[in-house]
Amino acid sequence: MNRRMVLNILGRMLIAEAALLALPMAVSVYYLEKCFFAFLITALFSLFTGLLLWLVSKPRKTTIYAKEGFIIVALVWIVMSLVGALPFTISREIPNYFDAVFETVSGFTTTGASIVRDVEKLSRGILFWRSFTHWIGGMGILLFVMAIIPNLSDRTVHIMRAEVPGPVVDKIVPRLKQTAKILYSIYIVITAIEVVLLLCGGMTFYESLLHSFGTAGTGGFGIKRESIAYYSPYCQWVIGIFMLIFGVNFNIYYLIIAKRIKGVLKSKELLWYLSIFFISFVLISFNVSFLYNNFSETVRNSFFQVSSIMTTTGYSTVDFDKWPLFSRGLLLVIMMIGGCSGSTAGGLKVSRVALLIKQVGREIKHMLHPKSVSVVRFDSKPVDEDTLKNVSVYFILYIICIMAVFMLLCLEPPPFNTETNLSATLACINNIGPGLDIVGPAGNYAAYSSFSKVVLSVAMLLGRLEIFPLLLLFTPAMWKKH
Amino acid sequence: MNRRMVLNILGRMLIAEAALLALPMAVSVYYLEKCFFAFLITALFSLFTGLLLWLVSKPRKTTIYAKEGFIIVALVWIVMSLVGALPFTISREIPNYFDAVFETVSGFTTTGASIVRDVEKLSRGILFWRSFTHWIGGMGILLFVMAIIPNLSDRTVHIMRAEVPGPVVDKIVPRLKQTAKILYSIYIVITAIEVVLLLCGGMTFYESLLHSFGTAGTGGFGIKRESIAYYSPYCQWVIGIFMLIFGVNFNIYYLIIAKRIKGVLKSKELLWYLSIFFISFVLISFNVSFLYNNFSETVRNSFFQVSSIMTTTGYSTVDFDKWPLFSRGLLLVIMMIGGCSGSTAGGLKVSRVALLIKQVGREIKHMLHPKSVSVVRFDSKPVDEDTLKNVSVYFILYIICIMAVFMLLCLEPPPFNTETNLSATLACINNIGPGLDIVGPAGNYAAYSSFSKVVLSVAMLLGRLEIFPLLLLFTPAMWKKH
Repeated sequence: MNRRMVLNILGRMLIAEAALLALPMAVSVYYLEKCFFAFLITALFSLFTGLLLWLVSKPRKTTIYAKEGFIIVALVWIVMSLVGALPFTISREIPNYFDAVFETVSGFTTTGASIVRDVEKLSRGILFWRSFTHWIGGMGILLFVMAIIPNLSDRTVHIMRAEVPGPVVDKIVPRLKQTAKILYSIYIVITAIEVVLLLCGGMTFYESLLHSFGTAGTGGFGIKRESIAYYSPYCQWVIGIFMLIFGVNFNIYYLIIAKRIKGVLKSKELLWYLSIFFISFVLISFNVSFLYNNFSETVRNSFFQVSSIMTTTGYSTVDFDKWPLFSRGLLLVIMMIGGCSGSTAGGLKVSRVALLIKQVGREIKHMLHPKSVSVVRFDSKPVDEDTLKNVSVYFILYIICIMAVFMLLCLEPPPFNTETNLSATLACINNIGPGLDIVGPAGNYAAYSSFSKVVLSVAMLLGRLEIFPLLLLFTPAMWKKH
Repeated sequence: MNRRMVLNILGRMLIAEAALLALPMAVSVYYLEKCFFAFLITALFSLFTGLLLWLVSKPRKTTIYAKEGFIIVALVWIVMSLVGALPFTISREIPNYFDAVFETVSGFTTTGASIVRDVEKLSRGILFWRSFTHWIGGMGILLFVMAIIPNLSDRTVHIMRAEVPGPVVDKIVPRLKQTAKILYSIYIVITAIEVVLLLCGGMTFYESLLHSFGTAGTGGFGIKRESIAYYSPYCQWVIGIFMLIFGVNFNIYYLIIAKRIKGVLKSKELLWYLSIFFISFVLISFNVSFLYNNFSETVRNSFFQVSSIMTTTGYSTVDFDKWPLFSRGLLLVIMMIGGCSGSTAGGLKVSRVALLIKQVGREIKHMLHPKSVSVVRFDSKPVDEDTLKNVSVYFILYIICIMAVFMLLCLEPPPFNTETNLSATLACINNIGPGLDIVGPAGNYAAYSSFSKVVLSVAMLLGRLEIFPLLLLFTPAMWKKH
């Protein structure tokens, strides 16, 4: 364990966070809000702590391994959340620090679960920071899932297939840097297009920006009591479609830019993603049609909610907690599926679900033809056994985590019930945000005890970082010097 | 597919069922009840259909493969349930045939979920048959899991490692016959001991017998409105302990008889089983202690309910639906774990759960030490990769089945809710019986529509037969001639 290197990178990230805090600070200055000081103090604190960490931990050797990469990722998310929560508490807009941490973890993990009872009472600077964390979290996760995880999958388990003679995020890793550059360009451009389209729909620049942050990160923090229901059907369609866009694997956009349309058409994950979306959308449209005045309203609400839940964003245009049992049940199921891998969406991810189902198919085939040897294929390529094993183990761990979080929430006294706790667990671990009943779209997480808020914060981190980094963080053997 | 052989065995099983029906018939004669005729008609119908099937399907070759074994097992359970339901409907005690099938499937799968609103209104002959199906189902499943499945696991997928030149259940398979003999002796002896102990506690012979049937099959059909709460604390302890006994792998009893105590002590599954039981029992005791007058009442009720749910029996001495959220949540979790493999209990089975957890542990270890090659061990023996894969695939399929059944139940109108539907799904697929809320220990499954009752019947069969046989039954490729 190269502790110095871990601390060094953590220091840099805190310096970066200080820089990021300048934006909400500017917003609060622009609107002449008091919360300006909260951002200033936090930014200075973040800057000095970061500098201190960076200076005292000049690494002797810069080699880091994948497991250290995991630890760094886990620590970055935790520390940035702990620091990012300070402006909420210092400004007294979310006085309780546990609440503020919950809200910030929810932001950085692009979950969108909120403990704020009346969001319209928050100042604009604070609301900006709240939505901005989604956008930052989305960037972070793109880098993590697209650049770090793939390099682990071949089990050499060194970042970049070999020892990395230098810090992960800067000079020595051209491919990583290159990947990040492309991803971030796509991310920024699509966000900008959404901002423009929302502006055309009559939103102010401030509102367009914040909603685009929430969409891009598949986060879902709103700024109105009614979430997106406050805005015109045009804006609802724009956000509904852009959520779906941000739930797609970013590789697809890269292929489009590179004019490799064949590759796009061959993508099985995209096909599964759109199929699951479409089937759920049609089923729910039929199931809820009696609630709405006309066809277009039914289609719009059903499209928006399915898109929001499947991409794990969590915006809403209606209170889907009032939908019939079947639609609510289906939403719980698609919560678990989530978006595509390599997107900002959470959940199990469509490709994992596809591989799980294909493994089952292979086993049945094997029972029918015991002598046949069959290989699981995805995107016309054979999937190696190690990947399949990894997907199964991830699924087992995922279900265990759901059960553990659910059990801990069950320590709450009434009026908390099974539906609330189960949906809260799924909504947090899959990084969606709203669940059902007390934590439904019209409700919030404020009534949970501090203990449960910590549990749910951990659940959000588990889901966002795909469990293993957090698990390794709490493995004593991990911390031995090597 | 050797269809003639399948039909032949099915014929024999129907003849056997006709013989089994003589027992409840005798009971109804003894108590001078009208339902006597219902049993007589059904027995004759079963006998003639059986004879007919047996005669017309003299197999040309007697070779059968494991996949045919699977089909036979699935068909036997289904056909015996369809026929076994007739006495309920003919006697007009359960007039609706769908309800009667649900009740009989629940019996033969040793589930114990009931649609009977007032069990004390049923005649004694009918109650006898209802509980007797548990005992028969328990015998069937012991044979299935102990003698048929192990011979598949090495993937030769022929019953008995090679082609079987003759029907599965009779002459040519000495090992199978031998195994069955030992298992059934143990089963009958332990049942008999329970009967005697219950007689000592003041139950009538009839009551002792029926409750022992329900305990031995880990079924749980009661004959009193208050289930076991009607009886003395002594009887509650006897049943509580015997449920735990019937949830243990029958190999353990064989080892005890063979005086191989070392083998018993080495059994990791037993250790896991007792540990999970003990931890749940202690946690729930603390959680519910405020509800009861004294320590002994708390311990008794907690012991009984945990034993009943974990062994998937489903008897109750209190309405655990009124317990705090934590205890109810924990019961839902241990519903999924179930008893030991090789017992009459349902659920995932302790050994599967242990292997799932060990696989996760290995993956984490592998991340820490990428170059290490580690083997999962159980009972000090290495577990081969195929078994591990099979366990993972089973788990995936199990979760998919839970979600599918849950979604179909969600088509019910209010007052059905998430908690009722989820607990009904878990209670049926894990063969427990009572769930929570509407289907709680004080409730029943009567309010579900016929459609949902069929869905839940299928769920019970899926759980009992460990999914694959039923799945193969509905695979078109299975039915091709070979």
